[in-house]
Amino acid sequence: MSRGDDIKQKLVKNAEPVDEFIESILMSRTPENLYHASRYLISAGGKRLRPYLTIKSCEAVGGLAKHAVPFAASLEILHNFTLVHDDVMDNDELRRGKPTVHKKYGEPMAILAGDLLFAKVYQSVLDHAPAHMSSDEVIAALGKMTDAIILLCEGQALDISLPIAMDVTERDYLDMIGGKTSALFMACAEVGALAGGASKAQITALGRFAWDAGLAFQIVDDILGITADEATLGKSVGSDIREGKKTLIMIHALANANEEQMIVLKRAVGVKGASKEDIDAVVKTLGEIGSIQYAKDEAEKYTARAFESIKVIPDGPSKQDLIDLVNYFVQREY
Amino acid sequence: MSRGDDIKQKLVKNAEPVDEFIESILMSRTPENLYHASRYLISAGGKRLRPYLTIKSCEAVGGLAKHAVPFAASLEILHNFTLVHDDVMDNDELRRGKPTVHKKYGEPMAILAGDLLFAKVYQSVLDHAPAHMSSDEVIAALGKMTDAIILLCEGQALDISLPIAMDVTERDYLDMIGGKTSALFMACAEVGALAGGASKAQITALGRFAWDAGLAFQIVDDILGITADEATLGKSVGSDIREGKKTLIMIHALANANEEQMIVLKRAVGVKGASKEDIDAVVKTLGEIGSIQYAKDEAEKYTARAFESIKVIPDGPSKQDLIDLVNYFVQREY
Repeated sequence: MSRGDDIKQKLVKNAEPVDEFIESILMSRTPENLYHASRYLISAGGKRLRPYLTIKSCEAVGGLAKHAVPFAASLEILHNFTLVHDDVMDNDELRRGKPTVHKKYGEPMAILAGDLLFAKVYQSVLDHAPAHMSSDEVIAALGKMTDAIILLCEGQALDISLPIAMDVTERDYLDMIGGKTSALFMACAEVGALAGGASKAQITALGRFAWDAGLAFQIVDDILGITADEATLGKSVGSDIREGKKTLIMIHALANANEEQMIVLKRAVGVKGASKEDIDAVVKTLGEIGSIQYAKDEAEKYTARAFESIKVIPDGPSKQDLIDLVNYFVQREY
Repeated sequence: MSRGDDIKQKLVKNAEPVDEFIESILMSRTPENLYHASRYLISAGGKRLRPYLTIKSCEAVGGLAKHAVPFAASLEILHNFTLVHDDVMDNDELRRGKPTVHKKYGEPMAILAGDLLFAKVYQSVLDHAPAHMSSDEVIAALGKMTDAIILLCEGQALDISLPIAMDVTERDYLDMIGGKTSALFMACAEVGALAGGASKAQITALGRFAWDAGLAFQIVDDILGITADEATLGKSVGSDIREGKKTLIMIHALANANEEQMIVLKRAVGVKGASKEDIDAVVKTLGEIGSIQYAKDEAEKYTARAFESIKVIPDGPSKQDLIDLVNYFVQREY
């Protein structure tokens, strides 16, 4: 069995009690169609990375997995709420291989389903926080989750206000993916640690670990969007380039291209109808400028920083699971 | 000075510290356009009824107004978040005499601004609850607010799933306005009471008072939509009838009309192009069936029940302010 299969199995096993909790908290009330729309995406799958981060962080500081389950569920609900609304904002038609919520239930119901999920994020914690946690700790956890949501909104606002890579600086990019990915990763680790009875130093350490892991994940995703083949990608090669997706690779390339290279880039970046030849030329040029290597180096840098941060966490199987997860995701073939 | 002017002045005065708090909690961060969009509607005005209910409920049980301010602000932000998203869902173009948020900033930014406001609802309380409240009480307050949001979503889902009055029962209607209006009114009163150090019995009493007041408010609004003139209404007479708005009057009429009356109703209810003559015939028919009187009687019934509920609250100026508010709104000319 490959290491990837091993990690996938652990993700599935970790998700079982979380999915059960989610099912109970999203159980139908009147009107049923609202609850159908709210459960639709979350039932369609997803890797359950965030519950994994939450529960493993709890265990890594000596806590019991079951104490982190309501938080893990809450944070997965939060992730799904953002996906439902993002898909409306971006008018995306497919997610997890199925029509998006607004395509299936209409836009008004999708907005509302997102709002209901948002409320359920809080209800999961307010009504189900484990008895051993003090009310102060519950409030601290809710505070971290709320801060993450604010950063998520800011990240998404940056994303929709800066339509294509042409206009974006590396600082903007890091703010954007920090908000869109790392903020929630960090909340997962911090809140899991809180549920596990962690010290302040441990909470901070796990939070930093997760923040940097989130940056590395996102950068690797961007690299795969340029270098992977169609089967691995699940979308057409070049689609990131044609839609002018804001990636670290592209931002680096646009900032470092010479005149000739810039002409090649401009022929395809953000150009919906760019030909396969134009796309191939862009990929070749990205290699020449050194942008793909630059992104790989940055992903490695954040991964190394993430591992540095959790040195203060005692060694053990759950800490190892966290390290394995990051290594697996960051070292996917690219 | 009329009683109405007196109440309006009290609303304005009550809102001052609340608006100051809202301004500070919605202060710009990057990206600025998100914060502009988030402040836009709430700065455009509004009666600030919910902060009034919150603060007066706090005072009515012996609390200090300033202790209720973060909650009052939070609940006003919550109200505005629902308006921003409702306007997207209903594709409304004007609110408080100005273009709606999505008309001004685009739909994606309006959805996102609503989401940010939603997070700010919680941040206002988590970061600014008065020091004298225990963490348990803060959690109780957040629980009541979260329950209200869930009911709000359910009420709005009922509203958008039952497009016109033809399909709605009186039970549906009460669930819908209970969710859309009363749930938040109730949360205001309960949370204000909590901030004021109320007993459980007082919290329940003020909550029930506010719930019933909300039903009465909504029913009166519906009556005004049929009987008021254009200047009072701020929209064209007959527009509620033409859009088939789900009102208690209309539901009563559709359930009690004879065959002949039903023909008159069907000619204009939910018919965009209905003529002025058709509208006039409907209003006359609503009178004949007794539907307008029925709605007036129901509004009186809920008002009386509201006043009954707060008999357990000690008499005093803030309790009187709550009673005056309801009397003023329910006894507007109709």
